[in-house]
Amino acid sequence: MSEAHPKPTQAETLETSGIMRAIQYYGPGDIRLCDIPEPQVKAGQVKIKVLCGSDLHAYFSILPVTPTTLEPHVVTGETLPIGMGHEFSGTITETGPGVDTSRFHVGQKVVVEPLLSCRKSTCPSCVEGSRNTCRYTTFVGLGGGGGGLSEFTCVDQDLVHPLPAGIPLDVGALMEPLAVAWHAVKRSNIKRGDHVLVLGAGPIGLLVLRVARVFGAASIAVCEPASRRRDLAETHGADIVYDPTAPNADVPAAIRKATGDRGADVVFDCAGTQRTLDTAFQTVRPRGNIVNVAVWEKRPTLDIDAVTYKEVNFTGVIAYDRDHPEMLRAVAEGKFKGLENLITRRIGLEDFVDKGIHALIHEKDQHVKILVHPSQNEPSSRAKL
Amino acid sequence: MSEAHPKPTQAETLETSGIMRAIQYYGPGDIRLCDIPEPQVKAGQVKIKVLCGSDLHAYFSILPVTPTTLEPHVVTGETLPIGMGHEFSGTITETGPGVDTSRFHVGQKVVVEPLLSCRKSTCPSCVEGSRNTCRYTTFVGLGGGGGGLSEFTCVDQDLVHPLPAGIPLDVGALMEPLAVAWHAVKRSNIKRGDHVLVLGAGPIGLLVLRVARVFGAASIAVCEPASRRRDLAETHGADIVYDPTAPNADVPAAIRKATGDRGADVVFDCAGTQRTLDTAFQTVRPRGNIVNVAVWEKRPTLDIDAVTYKEVNFTGVIAYDRDHPEMLRAVAEGKFKGLENLITRRIGLEDFVDKGIHALIHEKDQHVKILVHPSQNEPSSRAKL
Repeated sequence: MSEAHPKPTQAETLETSGIMRAIQYYGPGDIRLCDIPEPQVKAGQVKIKVLCGSDLHAYFSILPVTPTTLEPHVVTGETLPIGMGHEFSGTITETGPGVDTSRFHVGQKVVVEPLLSCRKSTCPSCVEGSRNTCRYTTFVGLGGGGGGLSEFTCVDQDLVHPLPAGIPLDVGALMEPLAVAWHAVKRSNIKRGDHVLVLGAGPIGLLVLRVARVFGAASIAVCEPASRRRDLAETHGADIVYDPTAPNADVPAAIRKATGDRGADVVFDCAGTQRTLDTAFQTVRPRGNIVNVAVWEKRPTLDIDAVTYKEVNFTGVIAYDRDHPEMLRAVAEGKFKGLENLITRRIGLEDFVDKGIHALIHEKDQHVKILVHPSQNEPSSRAKL
Repeated sequence: MSEAHPKPTQAETLETSGIMRAIQYYGPGDIRLCDIPEPQVKAGQVKIKVLCGSDLHAYFSILPVTPTTLEPHVVTGETLPIGMGHEFSGTITETGPGVDTSRFHVGQKVVVEPLLSCRKSTCPSCVEGSRNTCRYTTFVGLGGGGGGLSEFTCVDQDLVHPLPAGIPLDVGALMEPLAVAWHAVKRSNIKRGDHVLVLGAGPIGLLVLRVARVFGAASIAVCEPASRRRDLAETHGADIVYDPTAPNADVPAAIRKATGDRGADVVFDCAGTQRTLDTAFQTVRPRGNIVNVAVWEKRPTLDIDAVTYKEVNFTGVIAYDRDHPEMLRAVAEGKFKGLENLITRRIGLEDFVDKGIHALIHEKDQHVKILVHPSQNEPSSRAKL
């Protein structure tokens, strides 16, 4: 599974910087631990020694945001293989020319907002500040531009945010999925006092639950088949937790009962299955809001009668867009205490496939977020694998 | 197709009022012209001599709003057969006790807002003023409570609105579908200067086009396979008209070109087919709005990737809810001139099935709205059929 495969275009940097270990994505199912040149910081960039969250989607399929072996990504210009890991925090080890030194310094703990877009003046999404809907949106660690599953990575300063004081780096690695949840809740039309239903209590579902509370939800129900995740939902403040696979489970009836026959004001589909989407339309109140936070593997059918007769508002969300500063202020204010227990395992790069990816697939009920520590080994172990 | 079938429960009114002709709905495909007792006005009601638009949906299927032969409708208490016709105007011939005589008088031209709902204090939709999303919403002429395809009908005064001065009764019969269009555009998040795409130029599509212009759309494109309807779309002010069945038709590409590569701000699906829904998601701009105005016959598949990666807002609408007063003010201000040419045929009750329903099915390209004049024949022709 591991193989040395330095990119030819980076070979010339070998003399000026060292070799580092990095998880490289060669294609669906083909993920390798490689020795590659350490990236060199460019103007406006900071170099970060990283700590990264695990990443399941890219293992299964080439997402629209990922280039192929033949077609370079429009934004990054890179073809496969590319660096993996888009959920990461780290410590600044170097600042490039032109970096705002009033904001950034060596040794500082930071989180990365890995959203890349075309940023052209002809792109309405980039011009109007919804870079996440740019036709060419991709992410550091999914479409090129380095990645968090390597010892070091260099990132443009405008994608870097200081981690609030007192927040440990491992919690910092959760800020990327927390930003996804923040963005989803912010776009949901949620109002203080709303009844919320979260379908699926994986990492995003649990973080949506936390953010919905910060936004003033009066009650939050969570629907999740895995028992450990249901337990975590309770720990993180869910008022009611349902197992949709239980005998005689009737989530729509339970939600009607819990909301005085009204239905949920806002439903978040954080699972992305036909069943959860149907449940969303069955449980939402008239003129309520459903937000799709999931990435789907195939097209679902749509309960169009519910859309029509309940005048449902259905919205999609992807990633985030300038949500980090506001979210990080809430983190600094102590509104997201206790996120550490979402981290169910800590591994090194060498175990990423076997103890990371495979655990998330085969021991789904046991894991939420697996943290990868690219630099936990001593330099002596960095020898070519 | 015609048969006398007085309802037993109404038999006792035979002595105090005359017999009238009325189209009765016995079930899918079974529509009959019957002699039934004239309805008697109750407290708070006005009796109206009607003029009615034609109605295609009920012919094909029992909509959720219609009762069955065994199960009475919760709101109206009626079982099949029921009176047909929910799009109608007319002249008041009698006012019942308790009617607000400062608003209504005999001889006055009025339009009817035929929306019925449970109106219970425990119903959130009825209490909060979105009666159209009440679980038991139905319509005069679809779920009981009389109907416009009869010589007379009696309606609660709060469902009756004076027709603005100078507006003829036949245009008045179009106010019900115009209210559907008004409601759809109002809930679409449309802003002045928006680029709008209307899919399907049947009666509702054409009226959505008209309303979108009143709401300030900068450009309105219409996509419609039937040539007569495309001509009408141009007559009613469409800036661009597409035939999606033309060789090499590429509506998404055309819309991108017409909107500077941006996409439509608002798309109205007034056709309700897999193809139009797919076109909607392909043509809408990032963070744009799609409104489903169609009633569907089966579940479509959903372009969930477009929902997600463009953060599309998809909303359903049904009927209207307190839209009539505002819409009728716009009509009074002359903002909807020229609606007469949407009326492509005028028939009597006796021709409703053969020249009305069948024409809308088999000569779809030739007809938009067929008006039915229940009272065009002299009383002598009202003999039992």
